[in-house]
Amino acid sequence: MLITSLDNDRIKGYIKLKDRKYRKKEKKFIIEGMHLVLEACKKGIVEELIIEKDVVLPINLPTVYVTNEIIHKISEMESPSNIMALCNMVDEGIIGDKILMLDEIQDPGNLGTIIRSAVAFNVDTIVLSPNTVDLYNPKVIRATQGMMFHINIIVRELQEVIKELKGKEIPIYGTNVNRGMDVRSLHEKDKKKYCLIMGNEGNGVREEILNMCDSYFYIDMNENVESLNVGVATSIILYELNR
Amino acid sequence: MLITSLDNDRIKGYIKLKDRKYRKKEKKFIIEGMHLVLEACKKGIVEELIIEKDVVLPINLPTVYVTNEIIHKISEMESPSNIMALCNMVDEGIIGDKILMLDEIQDPGNLGTIIRSAVAFNVDTIVLSPNTVDLYNPKVIRATQGMMFHINIIVRELQEVIKELKGKEIPIYGTNVNRGMDVRSLHEKDKKKYCLIMGNEGNGVREEILNMCDSYFYIDMNENVESLNVGVATSIILYELNR
Repeated sequence: MLITSLDNDRIKGYIKLKDRKYRKKEKKFIIEGMHLVLEACKKGIVEELIIEKDVVLPINLPTVYVTNEIIHKISEMESPSNIMALCNMVDEGIIGDKILMLDEIQDPGNLGTIIRSAVAFNVDTIVLSPNTVDLYNPKVIRATQGMMFHINIIVRELQEVIKELKGKEIPIYGTNVNRGMDVRSLHEKDKKKYCLIMGNEGNGVREEILNMCDSYFYIDMNENVESLNVGVATSIILYELNR
Repeated sequence: MLITSLDNDRIKGYIKLKDRKYRKKEKKFIIEGMHLVLEACKKGIVEELIIEKDVVLPINLPTVYVTNEIIHKISEMESPSNIMALCNMVDEGIIGDKILMLDEIQDPGNLGTIIRSAVAFNVDTIVLSPNTVDLYNPKVIRATQGMMFHINIIVRELQEVIKELKGKEIPIYGTNVNRGMDVRSLHEKDKKKYCLIMGNEGNGVREEILNMCDSYFYIDMNENVESLNVGVATSIILYELNR
């Protein structure tokens, strides 16, 4: 199918997906670029490819060919890719026992980077607080490098989930420079099941949630440095939990 | 001193500093926000404070008071801080023996994050290849959280510096998934002196530079993941080198 008009209803539908509310309602989102499209195909979540006419792609899926002008309207990027796809959101899965909770992370690059590291270090479930930046924000998707398709990601009130985990004897870890233990001194038994909570760039984890933790870690570093980037700090702790 | 006119020569000078070439020529740059200004003051590199009139700041330094309109013209941010400073670039220092080399990193957030981690994990010198994003780009400065003032940062051709280091018996480390060793298996002796080379977001370290390395590392991770964000990967290796 070739579509050349911006007035086409299907194209209007793609463009509406730039809006978080509409993505949530439709349970669909758009991805851009060959690498992401391939990762999404692997997971079987691509509903249709959206490709600039004249581009040949050896993927056997329903395909909508469009003009360069339409590509620019659908895309969120200044130099859009001529390969896109309409994807279906995956249903939330069951919470596992290697869990990362993120409390109100705001920067899309940070969220994407953290998801990528979480998959790398074998986290099985990520729980996002409802105020976290939208998972389907195109900048988040790009920063995950497609890794968001390889992990169970849930949006829920953290307090609620923490209470459930306490019943399952999964230890809840937070970070705290003053009352924590050096993350290098983690024992094997501490790494089997865990829920690590990391928080907002400026403010960290909310006090009421931090108070629900069973233990606290810190990362040993030079005294001139108050803190690391939250993506880096999260990745280093996950690296240790997987070490 | 209170300046209210955008035509004022001093204000024009500040605005020109948005341009990399002009920063380089003048050896000056502007920083924004209380936290950065305090870090720069600690290091004695602030030439004058630039503050919105009516703001009171207990810092005893030459101060230029300006209007909100002027603040907006000087700033690179949508919601600028009303506290800024004109700073002098620091001369490049001597190369130490805990060195991080960055080959053509392009994302300002990544460079800033890496500098922050390098200070945290006791690197003494960072060498940037000439094609790396400008250190004095406001987004880089912000992402360093002022940590760039606490470390010796040099811009030079990497090949040149590597040759000098080989004469000083400083081992040169690169990353390579196929012919590397697990970064967890580093020995104490490998950590005393080192030069770690990390590269561009998309392409990694240039081949000709990678070939000059003495050893290669990789970070053990889930097979679904091809790579980590470069800021994360660099931070984890530096964390291990400081472990």
